[in-house]
Amino acid sequence: MSMNAVVYQGPHDVAVEEVDEPEIEHPNDVVIDITTTCICGSDLHMYEGRTDAEPGIVFGHENMGIVDEVGEGVSTLEEGDRIVLPFNVACGFCQNCESGYTGFCTNVNPGFAGGAYGYVAMGPYKGGQAERLRVPYADFNALKLPEGDEHEDSFSLLADIFPTGWHGTELANLQPGESVAIFGAGPVGAMAAYSAHIKGAAEIYTVDRVPSRLDAVEENCGAIPINFEDSDPVEQIKNEHGGMVDKGVDAVGYQAIDPETDPSDDAYDPARENPAVVLNQLIQVVRPTGELGIPGLYVPSDPGAPDEMAAQGRLGIDFGKFFEKGLKCGTGQCNVKQYNRALRDLIIEGRADPSWIVSHRVGLDEAPEMYEAFDNREEGVTKVLLEP
Amino acid sequence: MSMNAVVYQGPHDVAVEEVDEPEIEHPNDVVIDITTTCICGSDLHMYEGRTDAEPGIVFGHENMGIVDEVGEGVSTLEEGDRIVLPFNVACGFCQNCESGYTGFCTNVNPGFAGGAYGYVAMGPYKGGQAERLRVPYADFNALKLPEGDEHEDSFSLLADIFPTGWHGTELANLQPGESVAIFGAGPVGAMAAYSAHIKGAAEIYTVDRVPSRLDAVEENCGAIPINFEDSDPVEQIKNEHGGMVDKGVDAVGYQAIDPETDPSDDAYDPARENPAVVLNQLIQVVRPTGELGIPGLYVPSDPGAPDEMAAQGRLGIDFGKFFEKGLKCGTGQCNVKQYNRALRDLIIEGRADPSWIVSHRVGLDEAPEMYEAFDNREEGVTKVLLEP
Amino acid sequence: MSMNAVVYQGPHDVAVEEVDEPEIEHPNDVVIDITTTCICGSDLHMYEGRTDAEPGIVFGHENMGIVDEVGEGVSTLEEGDRIVLPFNVACGFCQNCESGYTGFCTNVNPGFAGGAYGYVAMGPYKGGQAERLRVPYADFNALKLPEGDEHEDSFSLLADIFPTGWHGTELANLQPGESVAIFGAGPVGAMAAYSAHIKGAAEIYTVDRVPSRLDAVEENCGAIPINFEDSDPVEQIKNEHGGMVDKGVDAVGYQAIDPETDPSDDAYDPARENPAVVLNQLIQVVRPTGELGIPGLYVPSDPGAPDEMAAQGRLGIDFGKFFEKGLKCGTGQCNVKQYNRALRDLIIEGRADPSWIVSHRVGLDEAPEMYEAFDNREEGVTKVLLEP
Amino acid sequence: MSMNAVVYQGPHDVAVEEVDEPEIEHPNDVVIDITTTCICGSDLHMYEGRTDAEPGIVFGHENMGIVDEVGEGVSTLEEGDRIVLPFNVACGFCQNCESGYTGFCTNVNPGFAGGAYGYVAMGPYKGGQAERLRVPYADFNALKLPEGDEHEDSFSLLADIFPTGWHGTELANLQPGESVAIFGAGPVGAMAAYSAHIKGAAEIYTVDRVPSRLDAVEENCGAIPINFEDSDPVEQIKNEHGGMVDKGVDAVGYQAIDPETDPSDDAYDPARENPAVVLNQLIQVVRPTGELGIPGLYVPSDPGAPDEMAAQGRLGIDFGKFFEKGLKCGTGQCNVKQYNRALRDLIIEGRADPSWIVSHRVGLDEAPEMYEAFDNREEGVTKVLLEP
Repeated sequence: MSMNAVVYQGPHDVAVEEVDEPEIEHPNDVVIDITTTCICGSDLHMYEGRTDAEPGIVFGHENMGIVDEVGEGVSTLEEGDRIVLPFNVACGFCQNCESGYTGFCTNVNPGFAGGAYGYVAMGPYKGGQAERLRVPYADFNALKLPEGDEHEDSFSLLADIFPTGWHGTELANLQPGESVAIFGAGPVGAMAAYSAHIKGAAEIYTVDRVPSRLDAVEENCGAIPINFEDSDPVEQIKNEHGGMVDKGVDAVGYQAIDPETDPSDDAYDPARENPAVVLNQLIQVVRPTGELGIPGLYVPSDPGAPDEMAAQGRLGIDFGKFFEKGLKCGTGQCNVKQYNRALRDLIIEGRADPSWIVSHRVGLDEAPEMYEAFDNREEGVTKVLLEP
Repeated sequence: MSMNAVVYQGPHDVAVEEVDEPEIEHPNDVVIDITTTCICGSDLHMYEGRTDAEPGIVFGHENMGIVDEVGEGVSTLEEGDRIVLPFNVACGFCQNCESGYTGFCTNVNPGFAGGAYGYVAMGPYKGGQAERLRVPYADFNALKLPEGDEHEDSFSLLADIFPTGWHGTELANLQPGESVAIFGAGPVGAMAAYSAHIKGAAEIYTVDRVPSRLDAVEENCGAIPINFEDSDPVEQIKNEHGGMVDKGVDAVGYQAIDPETDPSDDAYDPARENPAVVLNQLIQVVRPTGELGIPGLYVPSDPGAPDEMAAQGRLGIDFGKFFEKGLKCGTGQCNVKQYNRALRDLIIEGRADPSWIVSHRVGLDEAPEMYEAFDNREEGVTKVLLEP
Repeated sequence: MSMNAVVYQGPHDVAVEEVDEPEIEHPNDVVIDITTTCICGSDLHMYEGRTDAEPGIVFGHENMGIVDEVGEGVSTLEEGDRIVLPFNVACGFCQNCESGYTGFCTNVNPGFAGGAYGYVAMGPYKGGQAERLRVPYADFNALKLPEGDEHEDSFSLLADIFPTGWHGTELANLQPGESVAIFGAGPVGAMAAYSAHIKGAAEIYTVDRVPSRLDAVEENCGAIPINFEDSDPVEQIKNEHGGMVDKGVDAVGYQAIDPETDPSDDAYDPARENPAVVLNQLIQVVRPTGELGIPGLYVPSDPGAPDEMAAQGRLGIDFGKFFEKGLKCGTGQCNVKQYNRALRDLIIEGRADPSWIVSHRVGLDEAPEMYEAFDNREEGVTKVLLEP
Repeated sequence: MSMNAVVYQGPHDVAVEEVDEPEIEHPNDVVIDITTTCICGSDLHMYEGRTDAEPGIVFGHENMGIVDEVGEGVSTLEEGDRIVLPFNVACGFCQNCESGYTGFCTNVNPGFAGGAYGYVAMGPYKGGQAERLRVPYADFNALKLPEGDEHEDSFSLLADIFPTGWHGTELANLQPGESVAIFGAGPVGAMAAYSAHIKGAAEIYTVDRVPSRLDAVEENCGAIPINFEDSDPVEQIKNEHGGMVDKGVDAVGYQAIDPETDPSDDAYDPARENPAVVLNQLIQVVRPTGELGIPGLYVPSDPGAPDEMAAQGRLGIDFGKFFEKGLKCGTGQCNVKQYNRALRDLIIEGRADPSWIVSHRVGLDEAPEMYEAFDNREEGVTKVLLEP
C-alpha cells in the first residue's frame, strides 16, 4: 500500500511523492490517518540544506489525526480516537521520560537523548506530512482530543509551537505580575508571548523586525512591540519599561540577526547573522537575579556559521556580566508532554485560542510551494497547516 | 579612637596599620569586636592588583565577633551577643532581599546590585580584618551564635565559604542520590563537596591539580579525586562513573587553568589560564537535562585576561552543546543568609564540622606574611583565620 | 493631638470617637495620613462579640495613605510617598519573615507568630480606620504606589483581600490549565476566583448561596456559579465538570453553612453552621493527588461553636478519604508581602482591576451604619471602603 | 504448572499452598522468579481481618527477583535481569503517572486511583510471596539492579519501606539543617529517620514505645529517642529541643496508641487506639509555618474503629490550631518510582545501607509462623524477608 508524503529531495526542494504506508511494527504502536500536519520553522533548517539531512526523508513532526490501527499492547486508544502527537518521540520509561524530560528520551534514538518524527538525526521515525503515520509507544505519546473537528487548527499547534512557546516562559520561570522580554515574533516567539499573557505577566515586550508579526503579537497578547531595526532593542525596552525586565525568552536561536548590521532591504540576509547577539541582548536587558528561557535553537555544529568558532557551536557570550548579575538560564527543546494536556484544556474551555498564528491551511499537494514561500519569509506566511 | 586593621597598600602589599575605629552611623547599626576574620581567595584578586582597588581599603569580608555597641533602632541584638556576618551587606527590604537574593541588594551600594565589607566596588563598608567592625542593618545581617567560643573556626566559615560552597550545589539543584562533578578543591570547591556529602549525593568527583587538596576532600567528603594534570578530567570522570554525571559545580571561575597547557612546574602560572575551560568541561561531563551551579567568579572586565574578548568578560562557550543537552545553569555570588542558619544548626548539632578546611589561625599582625604565602599557593596554606 | 477613629464599644457596636494621634515611637516607624481603609469580614468576628476583643480597640487592618512623618532609621520612604500596608505587621528579620512568612513574624507580637493592625490578640498595633496610622518597620512593611490617586480602590485591596484570595490559589498550588472549586463568593472567595482567572485556570467553580455574589464572580472571572442551596454542591460540580476537579480553595472558614440544614429564609442563620462542612466537601470534590488551599479562617477556640469539640477548634474531618486520595493542604493567614508587589504591577499595567468587588466608598463617620449593614449581610454590601 | 505461595485463609491464618504459576498476559508483561519478598506491616491489616480481604488472596507487595519470561512488547528487559518492583502497579501513561503520582495510577485498578500486588481492593494483581510473579507494564515498573546478589536485603527494601519512609520526609518538605519529629519507629518510621539522616537533617526525634526500636533508630540514624510511655511526647520533644520543631512525620497512622491510656502490659492493646492522636501531637509539636508528612495509613472505613465517626474515617483534628499555625500537610501512599532510583544508587555507592532494619530472612514455608510472630509484635521481629 502506498500513500502521498512530503519528501525531501535536496536543498530547497521537496516533493509530494508516493511512499509505503506505515504499519504496526511493535505492539505499542498505532497508525493514524493524518488530519492536520504543520510546517515548522525548524523544517527550514533541513530544507535550506543547513543540516546533514539526506534526500528521502519524509518531513513532518507536528501531527494530529484519527487512530486507524491499534497494536495489541495498546491499552487506552482505539480506532476512531482523535489524537495530537508531541513532536518528540518518547518511550515513557527511561529516567528522562520519568522525570518529564520527554524531549530527551534515551531509548528512542540510540546514542542520543531525544527523538522526533521526520527529522534528521532524531531517530528512524517517518514524518507526518503524509496521509498516515506510525506512532510508537502510543499510549504514552498520544494526547486524546474531543471527537469531531472543533478547534482543529488550535489543537494542531499542541504538537510543537504552543508548548514550545510555553516552554520558553517555563524555562524563564515566568511568574504572574512579572515583566518579560521575548526576542522573536515568529511562531514560537508569538506563542511565548501568548503564554506569558495567559499566565498573567504584567508586561510583555516582543522584539522582531517584521511589523506584521509585531502587530499580531500586540493585538493578541497585549505585547509592546520593539522593532530592532529602529534602534538598539535593549535601550528601547529599558526606556519603555523604566529599567531592566524581570525575565527574558530567546525564541530566535542561532540564526539571529545583528541589529548593528546594515539592512540592505527587507529580505532575510544570512550575512547579518550573529549567533550570540540575542543571548547577549538578554544578558543586558534582564535585571540582576533574573532568568532566561531559551527555547530558540542552538546547534553544536553549523556549517553555515559566520565564523569558525560558531561553526563548532562555540559562542562569545558575556558570561562575566551574566555572573555578575547572578542570572540563570534554561535551554533545550520542549518536552511537549509537560504542557500539552493543560494547554488542550485551556483551548477546550475557551481560555486559549492560539489559531490566530495560523496563516494558511492547504492541501498536502501544495506543500512544495508553501515551503518555498515560508523559506522566503514572505510577508503573511507565518504558520502553514497541511491537510492530507 | 584608633585600632589596627589590614590595609591594602598596592599590588602584592598589605600592612597592619592604625585606622579610625568604626562608630554607629545609623540607628540600625551595631559595632562588633572581631573575634575571627578570614582571608578569602577573592581578597587575592585585589591583592594581585587585578581589580580597580585603590590603596587604603581595609580588607576583610568574612567576619565574626561580639556585639559591643548597639544603635537605637536595633531590636534583637544586645551587647555581648556573639554573631557571624554574611560577607554580603544587605538592607532586608528591597525586592531582591525580600526574595532571598541578599547578594543582590539594591539599596546598599547605589548603582549596583550587591554590597560587601572591605571589597572594591561593593560599597562604602570597611572590612573586618581589624579589631572592630560597623555592621549596617544589624537585625537583618547578624546571625546569632551560642555564647562562648565553641566552634569558633567552623562558625567563622559561615560568613562566606561554607555557604558559598553550599550555594554551588543549590544552583545545580543537587538532589540526594545524584552524582556531581565539582571543579576546584580550594576552599569553595572543598565546601561544595562537603555540602554535597551532607545532602546525600551518591557520588562526588572533585577536580583539581593539588594532591593535598584532593586528598583532604576525599578524606572529609568521600569524594573521588580527579587530577587534571594527569589527563583530560572529563574522560577520567566518564570512565570512573560509567558515563556523564547528573550535575556539575564550577568552583574555579575565570582564572581556570587549561589542562592542555604545559605545566612547567608546580607553581601557579597565569599563562596557563583559559577562562572558559571549566565551563566547557562541565558542558561535556554533565548529562542531558543536567544542571550547572556556578559559584566560581566570572567578571565583566578583566585587565589580565589572556585575550581581548575575555578582557571584556566575553567567553567562548560551547552553547550549541549546552542547548542540545537541554542544560540549565545558575550563577552569581552567594546569598549567604539563605543558608547560614541551617548550616549553623548543623554545626551546633554536630552534623557538620567544616573546620577541616582551616590551615592557619594567627594574629592579625601576621596578615601580611599570610597574604603572601596564600597568594603563592604555598602547599598547606588553604584557609587562614585572623584573630585580632 | 487627637483624631477621629472607629472604636469598638462592645458587641454590635462601634463608634467614631476622638483618640490620640499616633506618633513615631521607634526610628523605623513612619506615620501616615490614611486615604483609604477597608472594613473586612474578619472585623465582623470582633464586631459580633465572637472574640475576646475588649472595648476600646481601634479597628482597621486594610490601610493605605500618604507618609507624613518619618523615623530617623527609615531609608526608603519620605514625606508624601503613597503607600499601602499589608494587614500583617512584620519585622523583616526573624526566621519566618526571612522565609517569606510575614504573616507569622515572631518579633512583633510576643508569644505568638503573627501581628496585625487593629485586631484582638495580634499585637499592640492600632487600627487604621482613623485619620492617621503608625507603621512599624516601615521600610519593610510599606509598598510604594505611584503618586496621585489613580487606582485608589484597587490598591486599597492590596492590604488584604486581593493577596488573601491569591494566597488561596497559591496554597492550592493552582497551575494554568487546571480546574478549581472555590467555596465562598464573599470578598476573599471572589478574589480567589479572580486570581485563578488571572493565572490561567481552565475552569473555575464558585460555590455560595447569594445569587448576586455568584453573578459578580461569573461576570468578572468567568466562573461557573454553584448555588449550594439548590442541591449538593459536590454533585453539581462533578456533573458540570464530568468528574472531580484538580484543586480546591476554602474561602469560607469555620462559619460555614451546612447545605443539609434548612434555610428558613434568606437571612444568615448561625444555627446552620457546621465548621467542617466545606473542608469535607473539598475532600470529596478534589481528585486524588489534588491540593487544597485554605485561606478561610479556622480558630483554636470558638465560644459560639455548635458543639463542644468545635468550641476547641477540633473538627470532624474525613481524613481517611483525604489520605486515600493522597491530598495535600496548605493553610494560614496570607503573607501579604509575598504577593502585593506583583499584584500592584498587574493593576498598574491594566492587567488586573479588582475594584469590581467594592460596593461602597463612604466617609469614616458612616462606619457605624456600614458595620451594621455588612454584619446583616445586606444584599449589595460586599466591600466597604472608608475615606477619612 | 503450579508453585508455592502464601495464601490468605481468613483472619489470623495464612498458609503456603500450591497455586497456578503466573503467565504473560499482555505484551508488556514480564514474569520473574522471586528472590526476595517481604512481609509488610500493611499485610497485617488483612491478616488481622480488619479489611474486606477474602480468603484466597496471594499476599506480597514487596518483591524482587530475576526476569524469566518477557512479553513481546517489552523493550528494556531481558531474561536474567535482576529487578526490584515498586509495591505500586502503575501504567506509566495516565495523567497521574505522568506527573509522578504512580501510587495513584488511574488505569490499573478501574474505579480507583492506585494499584498494588497482593492487596485487597488494589486490583487483580497476585502477590509475590510466591515463587514467581507476573509484572505488568514491566518497562515502566521494573527498576534494574546490578547483577549478582550483592545488597539483596537492602534492595528488597526499595519495593516499599525505604521509599515510603523517604516519602514521609518529602511530604514534610524536610530540608538539610532542619529539625524533625518522626512518630513511629517501626519499619516505615525507622526508614523515615534514616532518610532524614541521609538528607542532612540537623535533629531527628523518634517517638515510639518499644525500646529496642528506639535504640536501633538512635544507633543508625543519630535520632533522639522519645518513649511516649514515659510522658507526653510533645513536652519531651519541646524540652529537649528548646521549642517546637520544623517538620513532622506521621509513620503510625490510624492504629495509633493514645499515651493517655493505661498500658496494662507490654502487649499491643487495640483498646488503647485513638486514630487522631498522632496527628494532633504533630499539630502541637511542629512550629508555625511547618509542614507535616503523613505516610502512615488512614482509611475511609474502619470496622474496628473505637467510635462511629472514626469507623467512617472521620477524625477529630485540631484544625483551628493547624490553621492558626499556618501548617501544611501532605499525605498518601508512596509513589515508589519517584525515589527508588536515587535510593538504589545510594545503596550501590555505599552511602546508604538500610538492611539494619531487617530482622529475619527465612524460607517461604516459614511465612505462617513469621506472620504470627510479627502480628504479635514480638520483640525483635521488625522486618521479615522471605526467600522462595
